[in-house]
Amino acid sequence: MKAAVFLLFALLVPACLTSAQCLIDNVIDLKVQAAISSIVSSTLAKAKLLCQDVSARGALVSCPAGYKPTGCACGMGCGSWDIRSDSTCHCQCGGIDWTAARCCKIGVE
Amino acid sequence: MKAAVFLLFALLVPACLTSAQCLIDNVIDLKVQAAISSIVSSTLAKAKLLCQDVSARGALVSCPAGYKPTGCACGMGCGSWDIRSDSTCHCQCGGIDWTAARCCKIGVE
Amino acid sequence: MKAAVFLLFALLVPACLTSAQCLIDNVIDLKVQAAISSIVSSTLAKAKLLCQDVSARGALVSCPAGYKPTGCACGMGCGSWDIRSDSTCHCQCGGIDWTAARCCKIGVE
Repeated sequence: MKAAVFLLFALLVPACLTSAQCLIDNVIDLKVQAAISSIVSSTLAKAKLLCQDVSARGALVSCPAGYKPTGCACGMGCGSWDIRSDSTCHCQCGGIDWTAARCCKIGVE
Repeated sequence: MKAAVFLLFALLVPACLTSAQCLIDNVIDLKVQAAISSIVSSTLAKAKLLCQDVSARGALVSCPAGYKPTGCACGMGCGSWDIRSDSTCHCQCGGIDWTAARCCKIGVE
Repeated sequence: MKAAVFLLFALLVPACLTSAQCLIDNVIDLKVQAAISSIVSSTLAKAKLLCQDVSARGALVSCPAGYKPTGCACGMGCGSWDIRSDSTCHCQCGGIDWTAARCCKIGVE
């Protein structure tokens, strides 16, 4: 039985290598391309921004693992902040009472 | 004609089940893997952050359906805000005159 | 050899067109679907939010090409800002000394 399969592909594979238009290649290619083009859009449709807020007392708060801060809010009406180590919101006004981070990642909803 | 196809696969399929290395499986696998690896990068290259700003009078403003707030801005210089229900910016300073939301989603540009 | 391949597909292809259940189609479909479903999740797992901060003196700062601002911070504690042309943070308080933008894009980490 293995011999039969080998014989079949001994015929097919060299034909693919020598012919510009290989039939079995084309059949598979077309099927794969058709399947993939529908997958590309459905994959992107499933991809969502997943976000959450975290807050803490003081001038610093970090996002959970895997999440990135996209913006920060501060107590005392303060709008001066920066992000440290790509993960932590830092409010700059003196004596700040609370700091919050808006944290997002890409995920499947 | 159906009998001929059946006969062909009667030879091929059992060979796949009994042999650790099935030739037809491998040929298809290689083609699929090659096609997919190029798709993965092109799919990600097409995926973009699509963002827009929305603003409204008062202390609350919501993002359009499908968009998530990534940060908020407030009138009166206020930087204290929070996000309600994962969709609405709320400015906390008293008597706030306007609220704006930066709203993003993943899409294809 | 080409004749042998042609003969093989002359048998197979019409069988696919005339039969509701085409064996070779099904074998390829199953393999493609299985490969793709694992790709969808691994592709999404590779997609990350890549973010960086940029800041500049004055009331305006733009994100690098390919990045979108998701939030802005301002000097002097100011929390009133807007985003111009989908790329530039603008702080609204008078005489603002610095402006920062949180800039993100989708990428592979």
